[in-house]
Amino acid sequence: MKNTLKLLTYCNVINQVRYASQALPQLTSEKYKVTKQQFGHVQENDVKYFKSILSDDRVLSDPNDVLPFNIDWIKNCRGQSKLVLKPKTTQEVSLILEYCNEKRLAVCPQGGNTGLVGGSVPVFDEIVVNFMLMNKIISLEELSGTLVCESGCILENLDNYVRERNLVMPLDLGAKGSCQIGGNVSTNAGGLRLLRYGNLHGSVLGVEAVKADGTVINCLRTLKKDNTGYHLKHLFIGSEGTLGLVTKVAIHCPALPKAVSLGFFGVKNFDNILDLYASAKSSLGEILSAFEMADNESISCTVKNLNLPNPIADYPFYVLVETSGSDEAHDAEKLSRFLAKEMESGRIIDGTVTSDATKMQTIWNLRENIAGASLIDGYVFKYDVSLPLRSYYNLVPQLRERLGKKVSKVFGYGHVGDGNIHINVSVPEYSPEVSSMLEPYIYEEVAKLNGSISAEHGVGFRKPQYIHYSKDPSALHLMKQLKQLMDPKGILNPYKVLPDI
Amino acid sequence: MKNTLKLLTYCNVINQVRYASQALPQLTSEKYKVTKQQFGHVQENDVKYFKSILSDDRVLSDPNDVLPFNIDWIKNCRGQSKLVLKPKTTQEVSLILEYCNEKRLAVCPQGGNTGLVGGSVPVFDEIVVNFMLMNKIISLEELSGTLVCESGCILENLDNYVRERNLVMPLDLGAKGSCQIGGNVSTNAGGLRLLRYGNLHGSVLGVEAVKADGTVINCLRTLKKDNTGYHLKHLFIGSEGTLGLVTKVAIHCPALPKAVSLGFFGVKNFDNILDLYASAKSSLGEILSAFEMADNESISCTVKNLNLPNPIADYPFYVLVETSGSDEAHDAEKLSRFLAKEMESGRIIDGTVTSDATKMQTIWNLRENIAGASLIDGYVFKYDVSLPLRSYYNLVPQLRERLGKKVSKVFGYGHVGDGNIHINVSVPEYSPEVSSMLEPYIYEEVAKLNGSISAEHGVGFRKPQYIHYSKDPSALHLMKQLKQLMDPKGILNPYKVLPDI
Repeated sequence: MKNTLKLLTYCNVINQVRYASQALPQLTSEKYKVTKQQFGHVQENDVKYFKSILSDDRVLSDPNDVLPFNIDWIKNCRGQSKLVLKPKTTQEVSLILEYCNEKRLAVCPQGGNTGLVGGSVPVFDEIVVNFMLMNKIISLEELSGTLVCESGCILENLDNYVRERNLVMPLDLGAKGSCQIGGNVSTNAGGLRLLRYGNLHGSVLGVEAVKADGTVINCLRTLKKDNTGYHLKHLFIGSEGTLGLVTKVAIHCPALPKAVSLGFFGVKNFDNILDLYASAKSSLGEILSAFEMADNESISCTVKNLNLPNPIADYPFYVLVETSGSDEAHDAEKLSRFLAKEMESGRIIDGTVTSDATKMQTIWNLRENIAGASLIDGYVFKYDVSLPLRSYYNLVPQLRERLGKKVSKVFGYGHVGDGNIHINVSVPEYSPEVSSMLEPYIYEEVAKLNGSISAEHGVGFRKPQYIHYSKDPSALHLMKQLKQLMDPKGILNPYKVLPDI
Repeated sequence: MKNTLKLLTYCNVINQVRYASQALPQLTSEKYKVTKQQFGHVQENDVKYFKSILSDDRVLSDPNDVLPFNIDWIKNCRGQSKLVLKPKTTQEVSLILEYCNEKRLAVCPQGGNTGLVGGSVPVFDEIVVNFMLMNKIISLEELSGTLVCESGCILENLDNYVRERNLVMPLDLGAKGSCQIGGNVSTNAGGLRLLRYGNLHGSVLGVEAVKADGTVINCLRTLKKDNTGYHLKHLFIGSEGTLGLVTKVAIHCPALPKAVSLGFFGVKNFDNILDLYASAKSSLGEILSAFEMADNESISCTVKNLNLPNPIADYPFYVLVETSGSDEAHDAEKLSRFLAKEMESGRIIDGTVTSDATKMQTIWNLRENIAGASLIDGYVFKYDVSLPLRSYYNLVPQLRERLGKKVSKVFGYGHVGDGNIHINVSVPEYSPEVSSMLEPYIYEEVAKLNGSISAEHGVGFRKPQYIHYSKDPSALHLMKQLKQLMDPKGILNPYKVLPDI
């Protein structure tokens, strides 16, 4: 029930955004003045070859058919691919890459295309390898919680499947209705459950991936412990398809919590949020499964643009605390105790606590739709950064001062428990002036605070030139060596992750 | 209190083992017929150089001083190093490696030397780089639970330090009183808390490491989320010092549980153990922090050899269930409910549940001392494998049948929650005949069951020739390419992890 509602709202937002602006986004190559690298161009013979290894209907070359695969969902990037391939098996992926590598044809792997940094769409005429047809669940071992599946499985479908067997996927994203597990793994997706179940480097048990030359690297182990190094799967987790294409995933699914409760609280200032986080960690301990914040601007905009109800009044900040546990009575007692203590302390001004599925969904909708809701007002510059907790919210007031009336709104929300804040700057339409006032400024400030310029969205096409703010030169050098080793012709997702120089 | 007791017992075992057998172990190179690789030999000039960058007292070359660094603690391996270096800083490690790389002098990195696969001692005359003096805690951010420290910090010291600040280290090993965090990270150590807090690929936030040529790779991020790939730290986690030497570690420490309880149960057969595990996962949920098993032979031997008390009677199998939570009353209620249900079901024949620190320690002592206790009877062949849960205990009876009267005992114990069983074969003294009946047989059987030939101990010196049972040829090829890329002269921990061919 919860998931269906969430999906509907999410799709709604996307549709509204689509209708709000029918014009095609500018070509990425023009907008960002990209220099084309030396790759081959797709010829008729190539299309013929691909049709010989895939069926005809899985090779798209009609411009109308190809167009949607060229555009990312926030309509920021538009590539110029002329060919989309939809493999159904690892063997097909291997044949495609072997051929492309030989002919030096560049490739853009694509999952659900829900990324926010332009990583999943081509820049020039890279061939799109789309994984939507590799969507089989291969096995689920219920006692150990081990799921094995193909990379094109949609996250929400997997979650529904394992929930019926008393398990839960260890990650949850706003985009779960569209994003694919292969894309999640390739981009090391974070999301709402990271606080509780950790990141994908911890929960992915094994990976099967295809290297640029078509070699299949089989690290598809299903064991919780396999200490026969090197632990190669991590090369493919979070390298965004630049070192290999993930074709299968084995992942550990934790037990489905028997009881879930949600608190939504109004808070006076950000310092109180940090105190509340410390208090929640202590009082709620092992049942704490989310600790999220949003400022007034984030919530007001969502309420207004999507006509969603806010169950509490207007406050400077909002905190959302979720607990997931195995005993409803125990969990309720812990949450009530926490609430009583913090109402008394004055850190919580007002709030609501619920275990009712519909009411919880109303609250989650508010939080999860912030990203999409703001798009309705125009263009939004989106930053996804990590900062040490003490400096978590610093940049929002700082940017408001810097940008003044040049922008409609600066707002921040995110996963406090993980030090991850999403900073959004809303303008009526894309403005190069605002862009230049934001970048590299925001990355410089993040670097000064020892933060990360990309907490969970990845590097993609949008951030390679800023990656040095988060990676030192020796690390960047090693990255380039790895790329050279694994993809010497550079055909895999070019223009992404690695800086030019 | 708990930790002090545990440490004492652990040291005790080591001392008893040492006294029990004063003879030096056979040279590794002879025992295993190793072919020496082409490296330089340490000359007087080299020693002089090392003394110029370290102080004299940190360069050991007297054979008596060097001897202990040549022998692993289970006295299975003995190297022939003539030189031990004890750097105090990353800069010193960098200078050492730069020099060794230039002169093609092989290096064996060494932490607490508590490994079980011969990974931390030299095979021939590799220079030992010991990290014991790099033992500074650099910072601890209490709210986010971020600890940064040098690699030579002893795990137990770190745990004591963070416990005083209401945090806990995310890993716990029997060897915690001696093992070092740098060694833990390099070997991707598992241990007793993996079930609860996951593996080190998930909890290590950042690493600083030195490559073979002396380049310092600084990936010492302290953020929970930093999605600027590539995620290079994973190259150093679990590659056992063959791709670089870990010099600093940033690690996430979870909140210290406020209440810990322990149950120790007698069980009739292994099937009941699996049923109990499913039941514990469901009833205890998020507070389940350990689910361990040991067979009768494991516990009897420990009770007898170390004169330890067993709080319950003699049973075919024992199960140890630990809960760690934030509310004593809630946790006790959950554990009692589980116990009542499973006494009723007959899966638990007898048991004891306690929250008393001393009593809990008595039980943990029984479990944690199994590894050492059996050594008192003679030589023990030790195997550390992962298996799918349904086949978890299969190999123990199978080996008993295969080996018959040729061995004193075959016993198994381990971390059921992680599919990890330690299979031990005890003999009066090392026997090549038994060895050849065990290897590669045991690895072949593990491979047939899709298990791992090394669940947590790593590959080290002992298992490279068997690694193909757990890694496919394409993965092995990529491992070799990575080694060639990062350590082209092969000076880092040679004869370890990678197979010869």
